[in-house]
Amino acid sequence: MKKYAAEFIGTFWLVLGGCGSAALSAAFPEVGIGLLGVSFAFGLTVLTIAYSLGHISGAHLNPAVSVGLWIGGRFSTKDLVPYIIAQILGGLAAAGILSIIVTGNGSTIGDFAANGYGDHSPGKYSMEAALITEMVMTFMFLIIILGATDKKASGGFAGLAIGLALALIHLISIPVTNTSVNPARSISQAIFVGGWAIDQLWLFIVAPIAGAILAGIVYKFLSSED
Amino acid sequence: MKKYAAEFIGTFWLVLGGCGSAALSAAFPEVGIGLLGVSFAFGLTVLTIAYSLGHISGAHLNPAVSVGLWIGGRFSTKDLVPYIIAQILGGLAAAGILSIIVTGNGSTIGDFAANGYGDHSPGKYSMEAALITEMVMTFMFLIIILGATDKKASGGFAGLAIGLALALIHLISIPVTNTSVNPARSISQAIFVGGWAIDQLWLFIVAPIAGAILAGIVYKFLSSED
Amino acid sequence: MKKYAAEFIGTFWLVLGGCGSAALSAAFPEVGIGLLGVSFAFGLTVLTIAYSLGHISGAHLNPAVSVGLWIGGRFSTKDLVPYIIAQILGGLAAAGILSIIVTGNGSTIGDFAANGYGDHSPGKYSMEAALITEMVMTFMFLIIILGATDKKASGGFAGLAIGLALALIHLISIPVTNTSVNPARSISQAIFVGGWAIDQLWLFIVAPIAGAILAGIVYKFLSSED
Amino acid sequence: MKKYAAEFIGTFWLVLGGCGSAALSAAFPEVGIGLLGVSFAFGLTVLTIAYSLGHISGAHLNPAVSVGLWIGGRFSTKDLVPYIIAQILGGLAAAGILSIIVTGNGSTIGDFAANGYGDHSPGKYSMEAALITEMVMTFMFLIIILGATDKKASGGFAGLAIGLALALIHLISIPVTNTSVNPARSISQAIFVGGWAIDQLWLFIVAPIAGAILAGIVYKFLSSED
Repeated sequence: MKKYAAEFIGTFWLVLGGCGSAALSAAFPEVGIGLLGVSFAFGLTVLTIAYSLGHISGAHLNPAVSVGLWIGGRFSTKDLVPYIIAQILGGLAAAGILSIIVTGNGSTIGDFAANGYGDHSPGKYSMEAALITEMVMTFMFLIIILGATDKKASGGFAGLAIGLALALIHLISIPVTNTSVNPARSISQAIFVGGWAIDQLWLFIVAPIAGAILAGIVYKFLSSED
Repeated sequence: MKKYAAEFIGTFWLVLGGCGSAALSAAFPEVGIGLLGVSFAFGLTVLTIAYSLGHISGAHLNPAVSVGLWIGGRFSTKDLVPYIIAQILGGLAAAGILSIIVTGNGSTIGDFAANGYGDHSPGKYSMEAALITEMVMTFMFLIIILGATDKKASGGFAGLAIGLALALIHLISIPVTNTSVNPARSISQAIFVGGWAIDQLWLFIVAPIAGAILAGIVYKFLSSED
Repeated sequence: MKKYAAEFIGTFWLVLGGCGSAALSAAFPEVGIGLLGVSFAFGLTVLTIAYSLGHISGAHLNPAVSVGLWIGGRFSTKDLVPYIIAQILGGLAAAGILSIIVTGNGSTIGDFAANGYGDHSPGKYSMEAALITEMVMTFMFLIIILGATDKKASGGFAGLAIGLALALIHLISIPVTNTSVNPARSISQAIFVGGWAIDQLWLFIVAPIAGAILAGIVYKFLSSED
Repeated sequence: MKKYAAEFIGTFWLVLGGCGSAALSAAFPEVGIGLLGVSFAFGLTVLTIAYSLGHISGAHLNPAVSVGLWIGGRFSTKDLVPYIIAQILGGLAAAGILSIIVTGNGSTIGDFAANGYGDHSPGKYSMEAALITEMVMTFMFLIIILGATDKKASGGFAGLAIGLALALIHLISIPVTNTSVNPARSISQAIFVGGWAIDQLWLFIVAPIAGAILAGIVYKFLSSED
């Protein structure tokens, strides 16, 4: 139970911190943190949970990460579904709290920090561009996670590398899809936004999971003994 | 005495660096550091003191942190009050020095870097939104502190995780309350601003301490042996 | 083969992340990440690969780095050419993927993130200034790499220092040449841009390699036993 | 000789990177790195040299640091003057290279990245404010250096803490004095600017050294055995 609670709290923090900084601070007049600040916010949620709750649950905070680690032979089959449920619930709890805060000055939640493509892409990128982006970004995220937590890597630095990898992924791809690479994050926002965000949600479940599966397979080759 | 001196110097640095960067650099014309720079400044005060004076006092620098660690069973009852006094005095000393510097070009201190809600929230967020924000942010700050300094965590990285957690908290919440999560920081500014800042000070004492107590209780559960 | 695959993937990530953030996010309206964000993106590609694939290939990701390590006596002659080929191919693969994404909203790739001098320097700096800049920046990059991976240095931190060194180099020199210090990165963009970018490509091969060779020689002196 | 060469190269990098990013990138149109980017650039010069050449010379890169370490009992008397000479020469070499690059697009060096107060303070802060700022900032810089390199601290993180401390100091104080805390850095710019920069140079030698001496004395108390 404790590891599921840790995944719940950790994913709560990922959505509250990442989507919260996007909704509250990104475009604050004159001194807003911009996409650079939002990118670091997402990255730092993972970095901070990795070093604080990583020893309890491993700090996945993301169904695609759990799937990629499972394909890569690093995560047990029996924990896969409970982890994913805890992540989705943690994300939803954060979206709930965040919706109260965001509307606390009379604003509406608008598009929140939902992910989208086509007309709902921040930079109006097509579905094809969004699909490639989410797949490749999640692929690289998992390659970095699998490599940095390999027993041959200098272990203590994994949390730093993985957190900053998520920051980097956002630096590149917010304009394309608002960056998901994490179905729990996308679901949490889509449920509150409804409409188009629900219609486009499939891509932010399928593409990250496909990228993660591919990374699990490729990393197995990279780390195999000759 | 040495650990109280270390808390004094450390909290002096937190307020001088965090509130100082806000007052001096955030809105500097054309090239100002914005809320992103202020967020990192707060975080780096904690990171730098954690690695330099942490071995003397533990680098709490914040009454809510001391209370949370005490509830979590990590801090002795006899040091609690002296630590809090040293933190408040360190913060006030920094505010004094800072008021001299800030007014050194003919400016007034204005609202300094005081915390506020309602009309005094940077983004005009309500008291309720401010209360939730400060409670939840301090709760997560203490969860990260308690987890990262757990004997099961990779110890050397605690200062990095905790410092960057404070940066992250600011990335999210400056628009709501100017971010406190630290009564010593709030007191230091309110004393110099007076008026409304004193009237609203209660929230920035009550909410962080409540969040910290809750985190102490929750972390005890998360780390209990089965 | 596995180490060549790691160099391919790592350089793919360097170009996709660094040039991708430049092309997609740098000048995004209102909230773009600017040169600061691009600088961190380049740095974080190296940091993340160093901690994840460094134990497989050493994470050079750059022909100038491979040459500098070879001159410095840290890299075998027989791997030099295959590493460089893997790096160039990885960069080209990233440029290919990136060209699909960038054009996914109807934009053209324009000058992509190609390196240039004179009229093609972002700040219109002369060929002489560009030559000095690329040589000195690569020289310092290799001094830092050779020093941070020296057996006398605190090993685990090498990935952090080297990644952030590349971020720093970009903070200084994007206005001069768009910053190369890496022939594989320059080639990947020039092939897609053609014309002037091909004409000026020589400088971004010659200057980084010259700087790297010089660093290899200087570091041998610095680390020699008396 | 090797350690003097390492101080020369390291201070060369501090001035080239810190003052270079200020002169070339801070105010680049639309996408400039601002004071936030310059702050990180200064910090990263120290971080990168600490992890790469620190095992050769200790990576002082600053006469005030050498003096503070000497007062604190951590640095030998016989090396003090040669270190300071190497630092000043390294800074001057960087200023020379930088002047060639900066003027490579037809610009003049103008005020370069010189330090100043009164009319030459970026925010027009008085001499008194400048004096307090430089003293307090250097005092805290040395407290962090002395603490982070204490044998009781978690050693490997010292380079991170010290580099980021310098970034933080710049986040706070660039508007006041353009931030020195380092006489070698100030001398390097003043020599090239001449006139007012030479007239005001005394403050950027006296205040940092006074702050460093005070820190050496205070840290001796903080770390004394009871």
